[in-house]
Amino acid sequence: MNYALLGYGVVGTGIVELIEKAKQDIDLYKNVNLKGILVKDENKHVNKRYLELVTEDINNIFSEDIDVIIEVMGGVNPAYKYVKMALIKGIHVITANKDLIAEHGSELSRIAKENNVTIKLEAAVAGGVPIIKPLVDSLSSNKILSIKGILNGTTNFILTKMYYEGINYDEALKEAQRLGFAEANPESDVMGYDTARKLSILSSIAFNGIIYWKDISIEGISDLDKEDFLYAKKQNCCIKLVAYSAKKEGKIYGGVKPMLVDSRSEFFGINDEVNSVVLEGDAVGELTFTGKGAGMFPTASAVCSDLSDIINRNFIHSIKYSHNNYSVEKYLPNECEALIRITTEDIKNTKKLLELNFNEILEIPSSKNNEIAVVVRVNSEIEMENRLDNIKSYPYVSKVKSLIKFDMLAS
Amino acid sequence: MNYALLGYGVVGTGIVELIEKAKQDIDLYKNVNLKGILVKDENKHVNKRYLELVTEDINNIFSEDIDVIIEVMGGVNPAYKYVKMALIKGIHVITANKDLIAEHGSELSRIAKENNVTIKLEAAVAGGVPIIKPLVDSLSSNKILSIKGILNGTTNFILTKMYYEGINYDEALKEAQRLGFAEANPESDVMGYDTARKLSILSSIAFNGIIYWKDISIEGISDLDKEDFLYAKKQNCCIKLVAYSAKKEGKIYGGVKPMLVDSRSEFFGINDEVNSVVLEGDAVGELTFTGKGAGMFPTASAVCSDLSDIINRNFIHSIKYSHNNYSVEKYLPNECEALIRITTEDIKNTKKLLELNFNEILEIPSSKNNEIAVVVRVNSEIEMENRLDNIKSYPYVSKVKSLIKFDMLAS
Repeated sequence: MNYALLGYGVVGTGIVELIEKAKQDIDLYKNVNLKGILVKDENKHVNKRYLELVTEDINNIFSEDIDVIIEVMGGVNPAYKYVKMALIKGIHVITANKDLIAEHGSELSRIAKENNVTIKLEAAVAGGVPIIKPLVDSLSSNKILSIKGILNGTTNFILTKMYYEGINYDEALKEAQRLGFAEANPESDVMGYDTARKLSILSSIAFNGIIYWKDISIEGISDLDKEDFLYAKKQNCCIKLVAYSAKKEGKIYGGVKPMLVDSRSEFFGINDEVNSVVLEGDAVGELTFTGKGAGMFPTASAVCSDLSDIINRNFIHSIKYSHNNYSVEKYLPNECEALIRITTEDIKNTKKLLELNFNEILEIPSSKNNEIAVVVRVNSEIEMENRLDNIKSYPYVSKVKSLIKFDMLAS
Repeated sequence: MNYALLGYGVVGTGIVELIEKAKQDIDLYKNVNLKGILVKDENKHVNKRYLELVTEDINNIFSEDIDVIIEVMGGVNPAYKYVKMALIKGIHVITANKDLIAEHGSELSRIAKENNVTIKLEAAVAGGVPIIKPLVDSLSSNKILSIKGILNGTTNFILTKMYYEGINYDEALKEAQRLGFAEANPESDVMGYDTARKLSILSSIAFNGIIYWKDISIEGISDLDKEDFLYAKKQNCCIKLVAYSAKKEGKIYGGVKPMLVDSRSEFFGINDEVNSVVLEGDAVGELTFTGKGAGMFPTASAVCSDLSDIINRNFIHSIKYSHNNYSVEKYLPNECEALIRITTEDIKNTKKLLELNFNEILEIPSSKNNEIAVVVRVNSEIEMENRLDNIKSYPYVSKVKSLIKFDMLAS
């Protein structure tokens, strides 16, 4: 079994190291051999092992006798081109690249099938946590009803800092960047795009159709401030960036947004770079999978899980969703509770407005003179949205901020 | 793909129903056909479906053209004989029978290999939760360092009742029996034997050697009383029956016992029939798998996970541990904290005794005149045991009860 690596950063290095170690200890890996490593700039890798295998030219990779390509370059291009080339040449592909799969997963899955090879992607979602394989194999007899997840380590690290240290978003982001948990340009993470891509991959497999990530309603974490966390704590909650999707009566619902997570919830203690996914099957009920969502060896471990399947000649097509595009409904029809913060010039009339719009109102003491904070409950998310729109339309109301409670997603 | 069912109780019925449903909806199951059902007494099944396939004679089963036997009879005999027969005849076996595997797993695995068939057992541990497959496939590149689990729904149901309702053990057991969560003879569950069997299966696979369940130190839950829970709550803890094993410097450690679980722990919210397992791999770190550990359809879902592997011709031998027997060390060399309850005729001297034996002592107010309750910390479990033995040896001390904190198992 010969493999080549596309990309030789932290994850690529981890994969090479883990496979070398496994070759010593584990029979299954004895005959796995590295045949080439593609990099963008050879000069950046002069201190690394296996320099003799490093090349900047993809043709050097394909000129070797390769059974499997492990793609950990990241980004859509040129990964897309190389992966397509590999599949057409009859080479199996393992990828950790969620950007690539979220854009082209369906097409690449079709090309793999046509060429009788497999494309596997355990590491693309939730890092080291086995989630694609359980979804495809272990739940094969189930209809998947819903998915909930904390899928992004960067945002979860920032939110954990904000919760425990009472600091503001900017400060927590800087700390995350300093420690290597956030990139210099954190947009893809903090805006929720990365989470939405992972949700789109899981949902497309689970619901057997393309759920394009840009069709998912996405809200990031950059608008959160330390007052949000103070209010959350008063409600015995933390704040997490939650991804969810569900299939109900033929419709697909999905979203990514910061939510209030109660201390009794399974997501409450999911901190820092840990990811957690809840899959709900009609036979098995809810299954929760939790572990490190990023990092050199956790990601390498997930890549090796795919590799062992290929060594064992277990060629199930992991991405086998049909090619019809689902539209994604933004608003779940579930009852929902939310924490609402209203900045207003007229506290008295705003309170009246709230009473007109909501039956149950729990006021939370605010330290700001021009702010009212309340917890309200309505029959559906769309109703919440409509009532908040109504409140926003009054001239003395300058800002309305809401955080929906995670309980809404209970089945 | 033809299958026969051995056993037609709740789980067997669930399997037939789930496969029939899957045949309608899921391509993979289209050609799966039921060919026979073995029961002990046909008269007990007269109201069920597929009566024409029901037989009391194993020879009628083997006279059909069968690819897979699904064994859900429970108990070691005659399941052992039938499973062995099937394997020798070149028939794949899927079993949910932890008693059978805990006794004969190693031998059956060898017979399967010799006959070029597979024996699969996802449903034997943690019911619907995928745990064998992640352990064997997803963590294939990892050395497993430790396992921790809540593996028995009956005891977890009883402990949840005792925690939330403040009732005594006998009362909670009766309630569990009334609701079908405990059997008329609950011994195997409440004494911890069932948990130990499941731990032995997971550990044998994880550590690649036979860890016989009777070699594991086992403590059940029947000695717990409502005072234990009152003290636990004062420590912000609940009590769970925890199974754990670890490999350290070539030695295997393992045990099953009630432990104090802190409210920040991942096991704190694992209630009723839910199971949870934490696998620690050297590359991936800790992975947690949580879901329903019992029940008709969760168990059927796990059986179907194995079935889909066989349909996909993925014949990895799930039980592929070597045949050397490990001895199992009872005491982990980790620092540990414990809640100690001492019944004594001499409170004053017992306090002195405690001060002589422990450096750090936190007293917890007791409502009993002849009892002292304290939390103490020592460098190892064996040290704890020795010091408690010393205290027990004094004539005025009539009883010493201890509950170790789950934190001890942190890696």
